[in-house]
Amino acid sequence: MLDTSKRVVIVGLGLLGGRYALGLTRAGFAVDGIDRSPEAVEFALKEGYIQRGAAENFAPLLAEAGYVVLGLYPTALLDWLKQYGGLLPAGCLVTDTCGVKTGVVDAAQALMPEGVEFIGSHPMAGKEVSGVTNAHLVDFAPANFIITPTEKNTEAGLTFAWSLAETLGFQHITTLTPAEHDQMIGYVSQLTHAIAVSLMCASDNGRLAEYTGDSFRDLTRIARINAQMWAELFLWNRDNLMKEIDQFEGALTQLRACLERGDREELEAMFRLSTQRRAVFDKKQ
Amino acid sequence: MLDTSKRVVIVGLGLLGGRYALGLTRAGFAVDGIDRSPEAVEFALKEGYIQRGAAENFAPLLAEAGYVVLGLYPTALLDWLKQYGGLLPAGCLVTDTCGVKTGVVDAAQALMPEGVEFIGSHPMAGKEVSGVTNAHLVDFAPANFIITPTEKNTEAGLTFAWSLAETLGFQHITTLTPAEHDQMIGYVSQLTHAIAVSLMCASDNGRLAEYTGDSFRDLTRIARINAQMWAELFLWNRDNLMKEIDQFEGALTQLRACLERGDREELEAMFRLSTQRRAVFDKKQ
Repeated sequence: MLDTSKRVVIVGLGLLGGRYALGLTRAGFAVDGIDRSPEAVEFALKEGYIQRGAAENFAPLLAEAGYVVLGLYPTALLDWLKQYGGLLPAGCLVTDTCGVKTGVVDAAQALMPEGVEFIGSHPMAGKEVSGVTNAHLVDFAPANFIITPTEKNTEAGLTFAWSLAETLGFQHITTLTPAEHDQMIGYVSQLTHAIAVSLMCASDNGRLAEYTGDSFRDLTRIARINAQMWAELFLWNRDNLMKEIDQFEGALTQLRACLERGDREELEAMFRLSTQRRAVFDKKQ
Repeated sequence: MLDTSKRVVIVGLGLLGGRYALGLTRAGFAVDGIDRSPEAVEFALKEGYIQRGAAENFAPLLAEAGYVVLGLYPTALLDWLKQYGGLLPAGCLVTDTCGVKTGVVDAAQALMPEGVEFIGSHPMAGKEVSGVTNAHLVDFAPANFIITPTEKNTEAGLTFAWSLAETLGFQHITTLTPAEHDQMIGYVSQLTHAIAVSLMCASDNGRLAEYTGDSFRDLTRIARINAQMWAELFLWNRDNLMKEIDQFEGALTQLRACLERGDREELEAMFRLSTQRRAVFDKKQ
């Protein structure tokens, strides 16, 4: 269980940071918020997501922090820690919301001052919208929450991350190593976004919009993408993602070869394999 | 308007043929059904989709036909016309439900006996299920109905196809040439199915099912595929589909190259283009 007498500081009042602030305030915590944008801080104050906020001079709020959530993209997160990490008070527990973990968790842990523990976590609850003004639209209940502990973490750190996820309403909470997490996310999230984006970039077929049905719309929904965030996620995980793209491209090339030589038998075999494998994903829904 | 005093014969009581029978019966037509499967005929009779049915000896039913719908896959459709087309009575109007048109419409028109007009059409209302027992699940209202007339068609033929679509409840009815249709379907339907199938065939990642979210499930829903039907559709339209695959693969290769050289700027440019193009598809929903 989290200790509601400890103050929470959210660093980065974006879509997820804002939603954490809202959820933790509702759960009875005293939540403060930090963001370089005065508008984001003002919005969070006005909506009652936070009790106190700061767009500069972060030291007073951080000095009182018992729990800290870094709601920043990977590059900004490490930059922030380099500049302000020393302000984190001994004894506080810190986590993040980044969608990639290798290179982020180790580096963040190395930047912690004495007596401060960082444990990585990833709330898999993104949307096609961004910013604190959309935070109330995020639904954590059906989403996965992945905790990525390392040998640097303690039982107390793990319990903090797990309780945070429970408090926020996540129903599926699991732990993976940072490497396992990034391999998984390369497949279930990044590859599918790479495919949807490539499909849109391949040709300018807006004139065909009137003919599209559910299958096209479902497949391309995620092609509306937050360019800055996804560039970060893709580049921070590029080795895994390139490997997934290569495997996918291999299968697509195989399918195209079936077409080229009119190989109905192998084409049907691919369709049967596809159907059989997809059924597994339905069962575990 | 269709003439309800004319009898309708549905050839092929599958998912769409069955749904046409159900819809036309509800609209007040006397509908008969032909299928090589006695079980399909029996089901359609029992459910009241058709008044009379035949799994062999088709001549008596066809002799009375005013309107005929061929609910068969392309290869089976042309085979059936070669064998039984001569039984179609002069004056009757014939259409189909095939998802590809080039090579089907011309060939079908060439196989019509004197005084019988064939006009191609495509109800874009497929589902991941098949067979007459699932026909009641098909919803025509949100689907596109494409009519593909040729120079062989008359005003009467076009009116028949248009009125048929209206009677069945389609709200979006348009005409395209067979070539335009196949180019369009190669992009909005076949390419997306090829992508979903390839993604499933690329790797056996069922162990990751617990981590998948909406985006993965939406993108791969159509990977559960009727192997025989889709092999037909892909192979009958393989030139268009191979061209679409090549264009898509070009964009994916471009994205992968951005990753390889860490080109954040071009990656973000692709994301912005993708977002902008996808927005057009939302507007026309």
